[in-house]
Amino acid sequence: MQASRSGNELAQSQRMTVSASWLDLVQWDADGLVPAIAQEAGSGTVLTLAWMNREALEATAASGLAHYWSRSRGRLWQKGEKSGHAQAVREIRLDCDNDAILLVVEQHGGIACHTGRHRCFYQRLEDGNWRAVEPVLKDPRTIYAEK
Amino acid sequence: MQASRSGNELAQSQRMTVSASWLDLVQWDADGLVPAIAQEAGSGTVLTLAWMNREALEATAASGLAHYWSRSRGRLWQKGEKSGHAQAVREIRLDCDNDAILLVVEQHGGIACHTGRHRCFYQRLEDGNWRAVEPVLKDPRTIYAEK
Repeated sequence: MQASRSGNELAQSQRMTVSASWLDLVQWDADGLVPAIAQEAGSGTVLTLAWMNREALEATAASGLAHYWSRSRGRLWQKGEKSGHAQAVREIRLDCDNDAILLVVEQHGGIACHTGRHRCFYQRLEDGNWRAVEPVLKDPRTIYAEK
Repeated sequence: MQASRSGNELAQSQRMTVSASWLDLVQWDADGLVPAIAQEAGSGTVLTLAWMNREALEATAASGLAHYWSRSRGRLWQKGEKSGHAQAVREIRLDCDNDAILLVVEQHGGIACHTGRHRCFYQRLEDGNWRAVEPVLKDPRTIYAEK
C-alpha cells in the first residue's frame, strides 16, 4: 500500500516535476551550460551573450530577472547585482535544438555592457579591423563604485 | 641579407597579416569555436545561434554569406547550401569579451530554421512548458528534397 502524502507534499512534488521537465528539455553542454542571448524589448537590440546553467535558468524564470553563470568567476550571478543594470525578463525562448536560450528583456539603466555601453556588441568589422562604433554612456568606474 | 620577395609575395603576406590580426583578436574557446548569433536586418528578429571556427568567420567575411561550423557533422557549412536559405551578411560584430559574434543578415527565403520556421527560437516558456509559438512556413521535406 502506498504511503499517504499530505497535500503540501503532493503539491511540492508536482511543482518539482513540472519544474524539472522544462529544465530537463534543455540540452546542457559538457560543462552544464547553454549560451543565452539577451535582446532588448521594443528596440530589438541584441545586448549580450552570456551563459546559463540549470540554476541560472531556473532563477531567471522564478524571479523574472536575468541570472547567468559567470564562467570567469565560477558562480551564479544576477545581472545588475552590482551595477544596478538588471534585466527584467519579458520572454524566455529556446531554439530548435534545445541548446540556446533567448531572453527578451527590459534593460534597467539602458546599459548592458560592463564597459558602460548600451550593449556588448559594440565592435564592428570594418576593412579588416574591429572598430568600436558605440559610445560609452557612463564611466565604468562610476557604475561599479562602492555604494 | 634578407631574401628579396616579389610584389605578389609581399602583397599576399600583408593580406595575411591584416587577415590574421582581426581573427586573432577573437577569443576562440578550447574547441576553437565561438557562438554566433544571426539577427535579421530590418525586423531585428533573432533567427539562430550557431557556431563558428576561424575558417567559418574568415569565409563569412570574405564571401558575404554566413558560414558556420557544424558541431554535429564536424565540418564547415555555408548556411543555405542545401536549403537555399542563405544569409547575406550586412554586418559582423564582436562583443566586449571578444568571444561572441553577431551577424546582421538578410535571410533568403525568409526561413532560417531547419524545421521550416522563420527562426529557430520558436519555443516560448509558458506556465512551465516550452510551447511552439511560430508556424511552420514550409515542409522541411520540401526544403531538403533533392533538386
